[in-house]
Amino acid sequence: MKVTLQDIKKAQENIKEVILKTDLVNNVRLSEKTGANVYYKCENLQRTGSFKIRGAFNKISSLTEDEKARGVIASSAGNHAQGVAMGAKKSGIKATIVMPEGAPLSKVSATKSYGAEVVLHGKIYDEAYGKAVEIQEQTGATFLHPYDDPFVIAGQGTIGLEIFDQLDGNVDAILCPIGGGGIISGIAVAAKALNPNVKVIGVQTDNMPSMKESVKAGKVTSAFIDTTIADGIGVKTPGNLTFEIVSELVDEVITVSENEIADAILFMMENQKIVSEGAGAVSTAAILSQKYIPKKDENVVCVVSGGNIDINTLYRIMNVALANSGRRWSFEVLMDDKPGNFARVTSIIASEGANLLNINQDMIAAGGYINKQIAEFVVETLDSEHIERIKNSLEGQEFKISTIKSLQN
Amino acid sequence: MKVTLQDIKKAQENIKEVILKTDLVNNVRLSEKTGANVYYKCENLQRTGSFKIRGAFNKISSLTEDEKARGVIASSAGNHAQGVAMGAKKSGIKATIVMPEGAPLSKVSATKSYGAEVVLHGKIYDEAYGKAVEIQEQTGATFLHPYDDPFVIAGQGTIGLEIFDQLDGNVDAILCPIGGGGIISGIAVAAKALNPNVKVIGVQTDNMPSMKESVKAGKVTSAFIDTTIADGIGVKTPGNLTFEIVSELVDEVITVSENEIADAILFMMENQKIVSEGAGAVSTAAILSQKYIPKKDENVVCVVSGGNIDINTLYRIMNVALANSGRRWSFEVLMDDKPGNFARVTSIIASEGANLLNINQDMIAAGGYINKQIAEFVVETLDSEHIERIKNSLEGQEFKISTIKSLQN
Repeated sequence: MKVTLQDIKKAQENIKEVILKTDLVNNVRLSEKTGANVYYKCENLQRTGSFKIRGAFNKISSLTEDEKARGVIASSAGNHAQGVAMGAKKSGIKATIVMPEGAPLSKVSATKSYGAEVVLHGKIYDEAYGKAVEIQEQTGATFLHPYDDPFVIAGQGTIGLEIFDQLDGNVDAILCPIGGGGIISGIAVAAKALNPNVKVIGVQTDNMPSMKESVKAGKVTSAFIDTTIADGIGVKTPGNLTFEIVSELVDEVITVSENEIADAILFMMENQKIVSEGAGAVSTAAILSQKYIPKKDENVVCVVSGGNIDINTLYRIMNVALANSGRRWSFEVLMDDKPGNFARVTSIIASEGANLLNINQDMIAAGGYINKQIAEFVVETLDSEHIERIKNSLEGQEFKISTIKSLQN
Repeated sequence: MKVTLQDIKKAQENIKEVILKTDLVNNVRLSEKTGANVYYKCENLQRTGSFKIRGAFNKISSLTEDEKARGVIASSAGNHAQGVAMGAKKSGIKATIVMPEGAPLSKVSATKSYGAEVVLHGKIYDEAYGKAVEIQEQTGATFLHPYDDPFVIAGQGTIGLEIFDQLDGNVDAILCPIGGGGIISGIAVAAKALNPNVKVIGVQTDNMPSMKESVKAGKVTSAFIDTTIADGIGVKTPGNLTFEIVSELVDEVITVSENEIADAILFMMENQKIVSEGAGAVSTAAILSQKYIPKKDENVVCVVSGGNIDINTLYRIMNVALANSGRRWSFEVLMDDKPGNFARVTSIIASEGANLLNINQDMIAAGGYINKQIAEFVVETLDSEHIERIKNSLEGQEFKISTIKSLQN
């Protein structure tokens, strides 16, 4: 194995002044639901909002003085960019980060705020990567790979040491997101060295099951079905080193759907009061969707890898997840086109205690019906029983109701 | 003083097995903004999602065996209900909670999940309170006041002890929400006893500045201007005991607006990855709005009192806060009613990189204009400069633009 427990212990020493030992908190609701003890390792509360600072700073610590003088370079529009930028700042060295031109302003300014030079180049990641390689050749800076590097993997592995320390060694299973495979490789090396019986389970999105496919095929394989709300693990091809470690040490790789990830993000906000990005929520999604079923009294740790989610994206996710959980209902009402009918519908909705969010009433849309009209409503509801009650009340008054399904459902 | 440091130390002993010592985390962004070291005391991550379990459990611990046998009763539809329910469960005694009939289902089921009996009675809080008094008289159960009780105040004061411990005594200022006054009274007693130079600042909403008015008037005074999104501090009249302690020990009571609270909730989600309820966000609002300006290098603690926010409410708050911070723009376009104009507007919006959220195009609404039409758009934007750029592009093409202000702004 190219990364050992010893490397991870050394990494822990290297990075201890720079990173936070993040909280390991019990999730009461998931524990009650499963009969297990479910914990969150909260790397969303880590400096820069994700675990990436651990690996980046450990890699920088490993550089010679000469290498440090030439600085580091990376291409990323995500958490790795901020991890490298802050890691370099803490080491007092120069960092250049190449991002595609369309990178979100919030990511650009966060990266700049840590003192890195940001170069915007190209339309997509691959073009930014090409530019970074070009700058690297000119400047002799060290290229920091986001996952396929033993020092980066050892840095992420410190999460594993902390988990064992925080649970006094009583760990039965660790659920961890997989994108390129850096974080799970580090954690697996640490965990299996400390206790070979610990289960280490990787979680990917259905939309990019690249490590799962690689393990199945017995070689590094690309997989891309669609984009994902879990952009932190939106990696089409895993690393070589990480593939090797995952193949040897990880017990199973499971996948969850985009809808399950959205539901998990909302669950974590409501029940643990934390904001997670999509990648950070896949371990929770695996439990909620019963794709991983913890044994009774088992100590299960869900690694919450980061919290850097664009707030407009989060807003859309909440909309989907609220509908999924019966807290929002979109429906059409077909009614006779006569005075007073519209008022009857709205007063039934009111008397059932639902809040109106949106109404769209359009005579023209009723199409084939000459004496009918169709109105669309969006209401805030308590749960699916509440929706059923409102539906029954309306149908009891001879209104015809049909639920509007979003494309995502 | 009816509550002493000794009482709080005793409370800490009483409750230590039941409560979490919540994290005190540095908020990087607020620290950078102010030049001070700003910390969050995260009681939103406390068991039951708020600090209330501390006071409730300490009060229950103080009961005689005979009193315990008769159980406890409270009236609340909020955090106090869950605090009492869990406190009673941990002590193995019976709890009855009276809530108004319209109480949110989520609060009812959370309270029941801790094993409490929930009685739904009356339309408003006062009727639920009346029912609780009635049940109390019949059963001889102990009535648990949410704030005006020395044991409750001593329980909340344990937050103060933890803050001092977590900062090794280097505390300069504590910003704390005030509703009835229980949490700030406890913290103020602890803080001033440990270091009389610590500033203790209370924060209320503009809409219910009852403690501020009471302090000004020199006597307990009611104040109600409107309802508030910070329902945890929506208290019209402070307690007698808490008024006495606040008058003597609290340095200043400041107030923040509802919009400032909404902005603070969003700020905390984006920058600290935590979900706060309105009451928990007022300390952050005080700093963001510069109503409290920390001195350079000062160690300032913002008490985040709880995270129990209804998710539909949070969704609405995000909408307001996104508009406040330039990430959402609603506007009307007045254009000539001829083919192609609508497409020109949407393609300008697209070329400026803004996402369309909503379009409302209505020929009838153009009213006075015979040959014009008005369309309403809602778009996702990056910041206010981005909005300005889109506006300029549209106006450069002879479209007339007006921003739609929501009533809240």
